[in-house]
Amino acid sequence: MKLATLRQQDSTVAARIDDDTAVVISPYSSVSDLLRNPRWQSIAAGAEGPAIEVADADYAPVVPAPTKIICVGLNYANHIKEMGRALPEYPTLFAKFPEALIGANDDIEVPSYADQAVDWEGELAVVIGRTARQVSESDAADYIAGYTVANDVSMRDYQNRTLQWLQGKTFERTCPIGPVLVTADEFAVESTLTTTVDGETKQSDSTGDLVFSPSALVEYVSHIVTLQAGDVILTGTPGGVGHANHTYLSDGSALVTSIDGVGTLCNTVRVHSDIPVG
Amino acid sequence: MKLATLRQQDSTVAARIDDDTAVVISPYSSVSDLLRNPRWQSIAAGAEGPAIEVADADYAPVVPAPTKIICVGLNYANHIKEMGRALPEYPTLFAKFPEALIGANDDIEVPSYADQAVDWEGELAVVIGRTARQVSESDAADYIAGYTVANDVSMRDYQNRTLQWLQGKTFERTCPIGPVLVTADEFAVESTLTTTVDGETKQSDSTGDLVFSPSALVEYVSHIVTLQAGDVILTGTPGGVGHANHTYLSDGSALVTSIDGVGTLCNTVRVHSDIPVG
Repeated sequence: MKLATLRQQDSTVAARIDDDTAVVISPYSSVSDLLRNPRWQSIAAGAEGPAIEVADADYAPVVPAPTKIICVGLNYANHIKEMGRALPEYPTLFAKFPEALIGANDDIEVPSYADQAVDWEGELAVVIGRTARQVSESDAADYIAGYTVANDVSMRDYQNRTLQWLQGKTFERTCPIGPVLVTADEFAVESTLTTTVDGETKQSDSTGDLVFSPSALVEYVSHIVTLQAGDVILTGTPGGVGHANHTYLSDGSALVTSIDGVGTLCNTVRVHSDIPVG
Repeated sequence: MKLATLRQQDSTVAARIDDDTAVVISPYSSVSDLLRNPRWQSIAAGAEGPAIEVADADYAPVVPAPTKIICVGLNYANHIKEMGRALPEYPTLFAKFPEALIGANDDIEVPSYADQAVDWEGELAVVIGRTARQVSESDAADYIAGYTVANDVSMRDYQNRTLQWLQGKTFERTCPIGPVLVTADEFAVESTLTTTVDGETKQSDSTGDLVFSPSALVEYVSHIVTLQAGDVILTGTPGGVGHANHTYLSDGSALVTSIDGVGTLCNTVRVHSDIPVG
């Protein structure tokens, strides 16, 4: 099953995507709202509409306002090995705030004071399906609603101003997520992740190469803090980011992020020069 | 004016603290809820009750569920200088999730797998009073509702497992905040912050020694991401943390954190050994 949060006039709705048709799941205002109902799976499967043409769908962030967005750094084994590093014993975790999220086809909004080193990081994202506290890795699959695509777009200059990455990772309206959540029963985790910039392939790797699997991450994080339905874990990015070659995104850049069997994000960078610098 | 969020049976209420009496501000369920009303100041000032004896008050986290908790590292000038470091050009920012927050007199709950290096960090906390986006330092005071006391209790072993501090900074139910918010008009920022452990003074410094002032932080952060009413900025801790001497908190430790003119947090550490390790 594929689920989405779609914009309609001034609000949003949860919807099930059946091929070319989006079936509204009333009365849920988003996938996050739906996931807070423990019976979300049968409710979504049984929804009967109204229906919208997928071609006309306006995708909001698939989970619009998670209480937590947890990001993982350094999580692709091949990339770590090719850099000559040892595989990490513990996951590197950092945060992103919900205001960073945008929909699958929205513009990435960059104030001109932060446009010096805007970089891409295509990622597989895990969406939590129910409250998870101190869950073991072997039980973790029960707490994962499904998977989606994200791009952890990073302002490298801000990220590297200090030792802590947060400020380069949570710029408003910079992180596309969606277009859909594919439920866990329909996705095998081992798939191909691809990031292109202006049509040129920059990243292409298997999401099966994660050092810390989605289940391992749910175990680890849930021993620190409770994961709520609709919370998101971004599982890290493979090799091929721009920073390695000092090539970055700029005004008009077309960023396409895709995971086979999940979906594709198409976002254009917009640099805004009319904002007062802090 | 002093405001608090008080527990009552299964819910909470916002209240104004008048000396020995807490006057309920109906129908607001918390200080966060109150701050979302642009007229919060006159509403709070005009509230007439019912009244509760302050001696009977059960303090919840003064802002129970901020959309954002932003923490600042390395922000006390004297401490930085005594360590032989240069003053930083940019603030070091990291995050904490709302599940970390506890009330002014609640226990600090530590699972036994994380009890190796539990450390204190007494801090002045800024509470945002209205939506702040790309605000200048000179205008920032208008966006600050007031100030409260926090202790950014840190699991140093988790904090130092990787380069990113988040996992040691956001353990569930470890960060006391409160007891009250003192409105900005009644607090001069330059005050004395004191942390004691089992009666022994560990930290004592002036909150006027901040490298990045509350207004400078509102400017800096609001150029990255919108600050919402009820969001919190923890402004960093002075010298005197336990990690410097490898002395830490343990089961039963009494942690008292106080800022003159704001209030006092009294929290006891409880280590829980009955939790499965992840």
